[in-house]
Amino acid sequence: MRIAVDAMGGDHAPHQIVKGAVASLELLGDDELLLVGDTNSIEAELAEVSNWKDKISIVHTTQVVSMGDSPVEALRNKRDSSIAVMAKLASSKQVDAVISAGNTGALVAACQMKIKPLPGVVRPGIAVTFPGFHGPCILCDCGANPECRPINLHQYAVMSSLYAKEVWQVETPRIGLLSIGEEDAKGNKLVKEARARMKSDPTLNFRGNVEGRDIFSGEFDVVIADGFVGNVVLKLVEGLAETFYQNIGRSLRELEPEMAMQMEATLGEIYTKHDYNEYGGAPLLGVDGVCIICHGSSDYRSIKNSVKLVQTLAQHHVNQQITEYLSELSVAPAIPPKGS
Amino acid sequence: MRIAVDAMGGDHAPHQIVKGAVASLELLGDDELLLVGDTNSIEAELAEVSNWKDKISIVHTTQVVSMGDSPVEALRNKRDSSIAVMAKLASSKQVDAVISAGNTGALVAACQMKIKPLPGVVRPGIAVTFPGFHGPCILCDCGANPECRPINLHQYAVMSSLYAKEVWQVETPRIGLLSIGEEDAKGNKLVKEARARMKSDPTLNFRGNVEGRDIFSGEFDVVIADGFVGNVVLKLVEGLAETFYQNIGRSLRELEPEMAMQMEATLGEIYTKHDYNEYGGAPLLGVDGVCIICHGSSDYRSIKNSVKLVQTLAQHHVNQQITEYLSELSVAPAIPPKGS
Repeated sequence: MRIAVDAMGGDHAPHQIVKGAVASLELLGDDELLLVGDTNSIEAELAEVSNWKDKISIVHTTQVVSMGDSPVEALRNKRDSSIAVMAKLASSKQVDAVISAGNTGALVAACQMKIKPLPGVVRPGIAVTFPGFHGPCILCDCGANPECRPINLHQYAVMSSLYAKEVWQVETPRIGLLSIGEEDAKGNKLVKEARARMKSDPTLNFRGNVEGRDIFSGEFDVVIADGFVGNVVLKLVEGLAETFYQNIGRSLRELEPEMAMQMEATLGEIYTKHDYNEYGGAPLLGVDGVCIICHGSSDYRSIKNSVKLVQTLAQHHVNQQITEYLSELSVAPAIPPKGS
Repeated sequence: MRIAVDAMGGDHAPHQIVKGAVASLELLGDDELLLVGDTNSIEAELAEVSNWKDKISIVHTTQVVSMGDSPVEALRNKRDSSIAVMAKLASSKQVDAVISAGNTGALVAACQMKIKPLPGVVRPGIAVTFPGFHGPCILCDCGANPECRPINLHQYAVMSSLYAKEVWQVETPRIGLLSIGEEDAKGNKLVKEARARMKSDPTLNFRGNVEGRDIFSGEFDVVIADGFVGNVVLKLVEGLAETFYQNIGRSLRELEPEMAMQMEATLGEIYTKHDYNEYGGAPLLGVDGVCIICHGSSDYRSIKNSVKLVQTLAQHHVNQQITEYLSELSVAPAIPPKGS
């Protein structure tokens, strides 16, 4: 397999990204890495590494999509950016997978434009794994598709369930549909229709609606939401986690300065236990290839874990399983997708 | 003013509710309280209180809507429940305000059915005040209207802004629209159209889109969302706050049992600082009357603070101000509401 890694993407690029690529060398076997970005910068990071040329090659690009760039404009104006070039490499099957901690919007837009969906998939969705207190919990879609139809949610349930099973080794993933009450009658039109579809799919272990407070209760392995709601939830959880730790630390320092100093290491340890870097990135499920979206502040561990994730997805034939599942009539779109 | 309090609603009813009513006696002035519920239970709670009869009367009801009841069925089958009776009292103007910590869905449905909206208001919305680390932040709508149109969001911004100004004493409330990116082009159709409306309203201090991570950043006094998203956010925040405190406590006990014991009081103190009981309930903004929705696990402080909130809303003529604002063409519905 050939795996492209965006050397220019993320808050700690290129240093942590190249470090992650080097850390992945031990995993590679017959696979190869392509570091996409500015050759000089990448080579400078590799200066102290011996033998990297056996497994790593560099694809030179001259532009960088910054974290603040508007995705659409960036893709229009920065055709030689690492993200645009990676998507092109994937579309022409010169690489099997792309990994980036760069501008998520640009990466997803580039992959959706350049990489075809798998047969039967109407719209790809981002499946983020949360390091919950009760174990991992997958939320899909986290922002690829902010204007969902019921079939999209049904397909996200199918794809995320296969992902949870094959990658996270959950035997029969318990699936919840994010809504605003547990009863059937609760929710909006989209959720009610999606619920009816998912309920009538006997292959899914569908457990009904899940409310915001129960996403991380440990009762669900997979939670399905439209991309708008999923993205709001993703960012809210990230923001709150940080805010909580910061403010508990600050309040402690005010109330009990001595204890706060002793506590610092312990709080850090608790925080690390739920660090997304340990989980790798989030796959854009449903594209004909593999696209892994890493958090902007990813360090080398996130890159290494994403390489491992790419390999696991391939070894377990997740894309093939998705295609087979969706070839069944009930989950296939009534009309051909036509990039809808 | 006559204020009806649901003596049967909430996890700690009737004890904490009646205790809250008694605690409110000192606030009442010329106002009166009506405790709605089972006379025997209420009188038992009042046994040790002297002179309550000056200011409190009891409206006897025989049924109770439980927290788990389906709202629609409960209202159909429990016509003599405290919630149903309170809504009827409000609709016939026998009381000026209702306060309940009971089944939120049933309360909101009852108020929407029985109490007319204010002139010009298309749909009422629930405005919850979060005890953020940077001060209060109001989120509207938190679940009254899960199927919003752009005009609803615009009107929620108008009503919440007046509420923040008059009740929370924020001089020019900074308003954000919950979306999935800061740029204009981000979001779904509803948000984009609402954004255009809010942007063109010169009276609002509209600051553009706000992402999930920035809701509690301190940059916004008011955040607007449709009722589906708002309710997901509300419940997620509640669930996460509890989970964080619980799990930090648990991890501490595992890692540093001795320190955990010392810490318990301090963590409790931090938690209390952000306790919603200190904030009273959430008004259903836009009804021709006052409806205050309290958290299910409210204690007496929440009831007392809700009584204070009812008085503040009245003293500051918030409903009148809403009506005046909405009589201006730009915020009024193009077609008459007809309960839409």
